[in-house]
Amino acid sequence: MDIAIPIFDRITALDAVGPYEVLSRLPGATVHFLAAKPGPVRTENRMLALSADATLSELTAPEVVVVPGGFGTRALMSDETMLDWLRSAHQGSRWTTSVCTGSLLLAAAGILRGLEATTHWLELETLRGYGATPVSERVVEQGKVITAGGVSAGIDMALTLAARIAGDELAQAIQLGIEYDPQPPFDSGSPAKAPPHVLQLVREHRSRLA
Amino acid sequence: MDIAIPIFDRITALDAVGPYEVLSRLPGATVHFLAAKPGPVRTENRMLALSADATLSELTAPEVVVVPGGFGTRALMSDETMLDWLRSAHQGSRWTTSVCTGSLLLAAAGILRGLEATTHWLELETLRGYGATPVSERVVEQGKVITAGGVSAGIDMALTLAARIAGDELAQAIQLGIEYDPQPPFDSGSPAKAPPHVLQLVREHRSRLA
Repeated sequence: MDIAIPIFDRITALDAVGPYEVLSRLPGATVHFLAAKPGPVRTENRMLALSADATLSELTAPEVVVVPGGFGTRALMSDETMLDWLRSAHQGSRWTTSVCTGSLLLAAAGILRGLEATTHWLELETLRGYGATPVSERVVEQGKVITAGGVSAGIDMALTLAARIAGDELAQAIQLGIEYDPQPPFDSGSPAKAPPHVLQLVREHRSRLA
Repeated sequence: MDIAIPIFDRITALDAVGPYEVLSRLPGATVHFLAAKPGPVRTENRMLALSADATLSELTAPEVVVVPGGFGTRALMSDETMLDWLRSAHQGSRWTTSVCTGSLLLAAAGILRGLEATTHWLELETLRGYGATPVSERVVEQGKVITAGGVSAGIDMALTLAARIAGDELAQAIQLGIEYDPQPPFDSGSPAKAPPHVLQLVREHRSRLA
């Protein structure tokens, strides 16, 4: 099973690596990191590079598409190479998914029109401009299209997807394999749960914190 | 603040990327990915490469050390270049931390002798051979040494560390920024919680699932 993760300049690494870590454990799965051209792409803070091993045009019919987010999605929302690839890949895919602002790329490609979808909480309303109905949920399933909330939500999305693909037992085994028994020291991971001053802090320092 | 993450052949990507995603958001922080030589290093399944931008010898006095795990740690447990770097970096560090089997490298370097520590649940007993006391907890703090459980536990560890470094409010803001409001579809992320047949499945297919 070919799983395609398109990556790009100014990506958020965890958006891609969370689902990769889950989905690469599926029997027979190969995760392909693709980009406009092969080689390293840098995260938004420039501190890390992930390597793309192939170009988008080398894998046009993956069974699963996972679109990560990051500041780099802004530039790609009018990039016809990326949008055409997404439209074409979605046409043949079994599952088309996104993490964080990756859903804005699906939206810009027209894939979310008429669907409920989610994204990073700071960008939820942006989805509406593309004919999608924003939903404040961590993982939103609409037929073969699954969108996830910000950054870390890709892990939950990928476990949900793993269960759809290979059954609950295998998804549970993957969860145990990556010891995903979350115990965050605080409970401020969503705008509904964070204290107001913390929410304000993230809004003010959005480019660094979100 | 210089944060060093040594990376290596057959690393588990999420072990490094989880803490990176949290700690890179600290004010004034620079996360450095280091390796024996600069360039891409491959994950254990070969599907992804992370780039090291500098050699270990270029950053010998980081304030924070985060040692990720993966199958590649086995070979490094007798690699004196890595172990010497860890000993030297630990001597001057404010915080020395690990994720998953990264703690086996700290153990092999003698850093965990006499301390409580944790690692991936499948490797807990290995710690004992290095004079550490294994503890089945997600994050174990012993003075400036913090070890975390398997793979995804690095996110929880890094939020704990972020709070120690910059205060609870900023750690909460980072949690909100990466929308870390975990909602796994199953509750099988630890050997104590997983159904027995799931535990058995991971033990049998350890090289792929864990």
